[in-house]
Amino acid sequence: MPKTIPPDSVGLVAPRHARFEEPLTLECGRELPGFELVYETYGTLNADASNGVLVCHALSGTHHAAGYHTLEDSKPGWWEALIGPGKPLDTNRFFVVCSNNLGGCHGSTGPSSVNPATGEPWGPDFPMVTVHDWVVSQARLADHLGIQRWAAVVGGSLGGMQALQWAIDFPDRLAHSVVIAAAPRLSAQNIGFNEVARQAIRSDPDYHEGRYQARGAVPRRGLMLARMLGHITYLSDEAMHEKFGRDLREGKPDYDFHYGVEFEVESYLRYQGRSFINRFDANTYLLMTKALDYFDPAAAHGGNLSRALAHVRAGFLVAAFTSDWRFPPARSREIVRALLDEDKDVSYAEIEADHGHDAFLMPIEQYRAVVGAYMDRIARGIGA
Amino acid sequence: MPKTIPPDSVGLVAPRHARFEEPLTLECGRELPGFELVYETYGTLNADASNGVLVCHALSGTHHAAGYHTLEDSKPGWWEALIGPGKPLDTNRFFVVCSNNLGGCHGSTGPSSVNPATGEPWGPDFPMVTVHDWVVSQARLADHLGIQRWAAVVGGSLGGMQALQWAIDFPDRLAHSVVIAAAPRLSAQNIGFNEVARQAIRSDPDYHEGRYQARGAVPRRGLMLARMLGHITYLSDEAMHEKFGRDLREGKPDYDFHYGVEFEVESYLRYQGRSFINRFDANTYLLMTKALDYFDPAAAHGGNLSRALAHVRAGFLVAAFTSDWRFPPARSREIVRALLDEDKDVSYAEIEADHGHDAFLMPIEQYRAVVGAYMDRIARGIGA
Repeated sequence: MPKTIPPDSVGLVAPRHARFEEPLTLECGRELPGFELVYETYGTLNADASNGVLVCHALSGTHHAAGYHTLEDSKPGWWEALIGPGKPLDTNRFFVVCSNNLGGCHGSTGPSSVNPATGEPWGPDFPMVTVHDWVVSQARLADHLGIQRWAAVVGGSLGGMQALQWAIDFPDRLAHSVVIAAAPRLSAQNIGFNEVARQAIRSDPDYHEGRYQARGAVPRRGLMLARMLGHITYLSDEAMHEKFGRDLREGKPDYDFHYGVEFEVESYLRYQGRSFINRFDANTYLLMTKALDYFDPAAAHGGNLSRALAHVRAGFLVAAFTSDWRFPPARSREIVRALLDEDKDVSYAEIEADHGHDAFLMPIEQYRAVVGAYMDRIARGIGA
Repeated sequence: MPKTIPPDSVGLVAPRHARFEEPLTLECGRELPGFELVYETYGTLNADASNGVLVCHALSGTHHAAGYHTLEDSKPGWWEALIGPGKPLDTNRFFVVCSNNLGGCHGSTGPSSVNPATGEPWGPDFPMVTVHDWVVSQARLADHLGIQRWAAVVGGSLGGMQALQWAIDFPDRLAHSVVIAAAPRLSAQNIGFNEVARQAIRSDPDYHEGRYQARGAVPRRGLMLARMLGHITYLSDEAMHEKFGRDLREGKPDYDFHYGVEFEVESYLRYQGRSFINRFDANTYLLMTKALDYFDPAAAHGGNLSRALAHVRAGFLVAAFTSDWRFPPARSREIVRALLDEDKDVSYAEIEADHGHDAFLMPIEQYRAVVGAYMDRIARGIGA
């Protein structure tokens, strides 16, 4: 709990809801009969609505990107390191918007929402949504907010994929795209990890083929395993070594078959796994991992990413972290190379950090400086 | 099935059993009231019993390292690439021995064996065994076979750790130690992956706190998940890309919530997971992962590996594979450096291979050449 809210925080914030009645035809071919998005905003939209910045969240993120909901909150929003007055996404200059993705479980329409056709939770009947669908739904939110063109669309990891997709799908509706710790498509290894997570959830007897909610059940074991596995891939080997080493909680092995927690890393992973159960929905997790697996803008162009990016008009900042092995710098460089092939305006930063993929969430000086300088250029361009 | 057995195979082989009546006090402090090891041998022990080579198996390996049990076998033993007449472990020159580790599930005494005290399977009451315990039990097998001193103890991965431990525990009972794709201790990330695998097994409702055998149950879901996860760590990102890429089995996404197999990599992992259920015991898997986590010969010397190796007398070949991210070359170099610090006789080879950790099982030319040359030197030394 923050005793006092730090002066560089956006402070107390409250989520808002937007309802969209017009049906949405999704990439999978199915139609969603209207939907709702929950979102937060930080800063003030200027008179010509030119200072809007859309922040897109990653796999387990939410619309709560910055500030606090109450003075009792133990933690601020997930991107407090970057969003706030005087921070890289400077809320004195920008109107920052973050929504919970469609299919999410924090207030936007998703598998745990009620299906109007049945009066029951959608569960596994919720249509599969893709990164493209998210971008289209976010464009409706932009309309709702009176923002014709974002000053920037910004995101890390799966959020970076949305920033990239925005530039492809709506070339005229964003001035800049900031793509952090992302990849133009998942590798077979990435898909493999997602598949193990999905199998963990789906093989949990409490999953009930996705209809656990109607049964009053929660596939806790599966969610916990999925999250534990995820966490290993978010940290670098080096970061785990720094954080836990081989430290034994009791100082020595207990050599028994009860498999209690012995190493500190076991304690950390179990804690992360357990706490996830109470804040995430299993069907949403499945859907988000599938959206990741499917993401591949080059696929429609015979695998040629340059061709997929031929019509983008945004300027790009692409950033990667040296110790990220989930989406290593080499994957970001693929995006940069494809943009350069098409003579696009692109800056690239490879940031020295030993935190692994999670670095994109952290207050790393070089990282904040790189994003801050780029955003400053944008702000000057619009007189903000 | 081999239509004809290749001339460089050891051919048809049969496992043998050795029973040891003398109780064995284990590192955990508990005593095993006698035990049995199943093993195979290839080649002929020479008159002075100087050409014995002990092969140690890895996590999911067995005593069946080479040749075929029947002409109908679909596959030979797990190290057919290296063991046979004219191969690096040349059975025309060496008497090669491989036993199933104590605590295993392929014929040696382990959790699925009957506990003489109760007449029931040991299950979770089986004592925890360590790499040191394996080495001690293998020394009894050496006595049984009349081998006072091995020409070499050889192994990959967890097998390499046994080869290292042999040199520490019985400096006078081996002339050479061949440590392939191993590490002097697990990293926090390694332990993390093991912990997820253990949680997958232990959270399976069919695990019954380890007493599944008495209940006629098998924790299939947990074993499958553990194996799927293992397989991702055995392959390099590059190898998975080569093998599967992002190929969709049906050529296009099916966008449905049934989560059938879509990507080839999903099909591979599910197949590997399912086939493991029928050939491996869950309690053994738990125990083997713990033996890995505990392995840390430097721990007794304040973390100083050189000190742990001060009294070894064996010559060493240490080998690592460039794309192995489970036990990368840097981990092997720690062993090499510690041996050099103590002026020990050590050769080191870093082998170019994009197969990941699994490379140690494969017929890679440079790998076979390196091991072959080292073993040839040993054979010449003993006139074999």
